[in-house]
Amino acid sequence: MRDLYYDQLDAIVDELVSMTRAVRTAVGQATQALLTGDAELAEQVISDDAVIDLARERVEDRSFELLALQQPVAGDLRMLVAGLRMVGELERMGDLSVHIAKVARLRVPALAVPQEIEPTIRRMAEVAEHMVDSVADVIADRDVDAAHELEQADDEMDQLRRSSFRLLLGEDWTHGVEPAVDVALLGRYYERIADHAVSLARRVVYLVTGESPTVDA
Amino acid sequence: MRDLYYDQLDAIVDELVSMTRAVRTAVGQATQALLTGDAELAEQVISDDAVIDLARERVEDRSFELLALQQPVAGDLRMLVAGLRMVGELERMGDLSVHIAKVARLRVPALAVPQEIEPTIRRMAEVAEHMVDSVADVIADRDVDAAHELEQADDEMDQLRRSSFRLLLGEDWTHGVEPAVDVALLGRYYERIADHAVSLARRVVYLVTGESPTVDA
Repeated sequence: MRDLYYDQLDAIVDELVSMTRAVRTAVGQATQALLTGDAELAEQVISDDAVIDLARERVEDRSFELLALQQPVAGDLRMLVAGLRMVGELERMGDLSVHIAKVARLRVPALAVPQEIEPTIRRMAEVAEHMVDSVADVIADRDVDAAHELEQADDEMDQLRRSSFRLLLGEDWTHGVEPAVDVALLGRYYERIADHAVSLARRVVYLVTGESPTVDA
Repeated sequence: MRDLYYDQLDAIVDELVSMTRAVRTAVGQATQALLTGDAELAEQVISDDAVIDLARERVEDRSFELLALQQPVAGDLRMLVAGLRMVGELERMGDLSVHIAKVARLRVPALAVPQEIEPTIRRMAEVAEHMVDSVADVIADRDVDAAHELEQADDEMDQLRRSSFRLLLGEDWTHGVEPAVDVALLGRYYERIADHAVSLARRVVYLVTGESPTVDA
């Protein structure tokens, strides 16, 4: 019975890791759709999101089953509750990728991101993708050092967000309102993906060290 | 022992209700600061957010204590886990109010919202405030009917968001990029507050009826 229990706990961690990898794919594909104006790829991100939502339901069902039948205590209990909160965050990261894909789709065959701000948005996407990659490793290996590195990546994201505002509110901005609004919202979506990555990593740190995760506004 | 246990469960529900009322205050004050350019009120929303964050920690600590010591099953277990997720959402709603207050503060002594779009933003705020009010009642009274009404309010929020885009992307928009970006982000913040309200209400419906909550992107 207990062996099966530990197998089930491991299965939940595996599922969290594979959800994180699915989110990584969604962020990457949404960005590619955005920067190349690929409507088909945007559609794929939007429809594939159902897979992430289903994975969330599966992890929730399994976690409740374990909570109810096995009445885990201490570390296992904290792990299961943390897992339930982590799937909620992963689902949101999938939703944010869908938002990015929808901005791409809305502007096809044009590109939503004007050329001079493209490097900034591209870098935001790279930082976000790298953070989601790291989170998968943090969850799989309970890697506390990698979790701390995510905080630095998040600082770069904040700087990129500020540069994007400087560009679109600057005197050289000639594209008018619509692309500015697109870029401001896209920046918000990438920033939120990064925030969720930091929050997920902090939950793992908390499980490993007992050090409390505080999530900023 | 069991009486104390039920007192503790009730105390958690009370704390959720009072957190929701604190969020209601934050949304209302942030909106007032925004529409009147009141820097002092904006500062207050920003500093008061610490109270909501502390309440989250308190509910989390109490819930884990109950989960670990009492090993609740079935309905109580689901309630405690739902509560843990609800405090996370309430904390986010507080953060979103802070974001609104920060937009207000950034533009003082000017107003962030141009006059012709003010009625739309004002109505978004009213809808959001009303939804947060309803959620407090839904949690306090486990009122499933009120929970369903929140879905309709959320539809109005979506329509308002679309009208705001029509205004700021329309030919009559003379305010340029900066107010357009402010309004687009403000719209996003109010929309997210409304989304969280719907999600909180669905969690209560789920606890009462077992009917599964599905949260849209």
